[in-house]
Amino acid sequence: MGITRVDLNVSLDGYMTTTDQTPEDPFGADWERLTAAYTATRTFQLRLGHEGGTTGLDDAHIKAESHGIGAEILGAGMFGFHAHPEDSDWQGWWGPNPPFGVPVFVLTHRERESLAMEGGTTYHFLSASPQETLARAQEAAGELDVRIGGGARVVKNFLRAGLVDRLHVAIVPILLGRGESIWQDLRGFEEGREMRSEVAESGVVHVVFEPRSS
Amino acid sequence: MGITRVDLNVSLDGYMTTTDQTPEDPFGADWERLTAAYTATRTFQLRLGHEGGTTGLDDAHIKAESHGIGAEILGAGMFGFHAHPEDSDWQGWWGPNPPFGVPVFVLTHRERESLAMEGGTTYHFLSASPQETLARAQEAAGELDVRIGGGARVVKNFLRAGLVDRLHVAIVPILLGRGESIWQDLRGFEEGREMRSEVAESGVVHVVFEPRSS
Repeated sequence: MGITRVDLNVSLDGYMTTTDQTPEDPFGADWERLTAAYTATRTFQLRLGHEGGTTGLDDAHIKAESHGIGAEILGAGMFGFHAHPEDSDWQGWWGPNPPFGVPVFVLTHRERESLAMEGGTTYHFLSASPQETLARAQEAAGELDVRIGGGARVVKNFLRAGLVDRLHVAIVPILLGRGESIWQDLRGFEEGREMRSEVAESGVVHVVFEPRSS
Repeated sequence: MGITRVDLNVSLDGYMTTTDQTPEDPFGADWERLTAAYTATRTFQLRLGHEGGTTGLDDAHIKAESHGIGAEILGAGMFGFHAHPEDSDWQGWWGPNPPFGVPVFVLTHRERESLAMEGGTTYHFLSASPQETLARAQEAAGELDVRIGGGARVVKNFLRAGLVDRLHVAIVPILLGRGESIWQDLRGFEEGREMRSEVAESGVVHVVFEPRSS
């Protein structure tokens, strides 16, 4: 069986969500600053069908994020349910060929049939505890890892339930002062884990906690 | 005139104080973990009269902390008033030859005469706003910088009053989960400042925000 992994962009003061969204600017200026180094990478630009992009440490970390993943877990918001409450045929805002390429377990109270997309992504919809959801995802992932893709509250639930083995935070050197903090109630998370940290050319500090290799 | 500087050891989740002190262990195990890389340096060990110690990035940052300082500001707790409330002759727990070597402004409601120690340290006692205190310290520092030495609440007051020019945080990769957080209400602190970050051999991440050199 693989491990359970989380990758996040967080501000230096620990916020993984931003608060300055408006109808005119649905992501907001803070989100752009929080993800600027991430979206500037070659790997991300390729996903958009663009050429170019950075090829340093930020890019290496993004590449590693999708490597070895056999199933993904997403909250309802990440699938777009909240933005499209009336559309009973909504297929997610990741398009007909989503970037996952693996079974994706979407946490929602809606009852929906599983949805097979192009490129290997199949969405499964369920309402279950983090433990039950993870068991389903692990079964689908086989020998590979499970990634908790977000959003913030889903990640927090899995972290606080002690279900995350490997945590990668890309700490962006800006102070947001408000939002959803990743760091609440994680006292002692480092115990039994190896830590390494590296500074990317962008100034982003990548910190990884992972199970000690025995 | 110089600038105003702060240097801090903080946990990855932003705590600069620890909460596990006991009468038998007045610093506590968390404090030892939070300051382990700091106290392991050659510069710190020399202050204790010991030989040896690390000579890498952690040591370079400690050396820089005292370089160019013309005056220091401390809270009453850092002077030891709270621990020795009955001793009207208390001269601080930094000994007869304190490590400052400059005028030190101690924030307290007690009225005390200034106290000249060996080695250039003179303690001045005052009860004043951060602005007034800083003005006194700047006058004493002349062309040199003023350092806000702590404790945590004093540092927060000066940060929130917008009086800190250069902030150096040594981020220790442990999660404390509780204590006094440095990061509250500092949204936008990075604006107008240059940031640089480096990872020390110990795993500590040194992040420095300083005024943009024009």
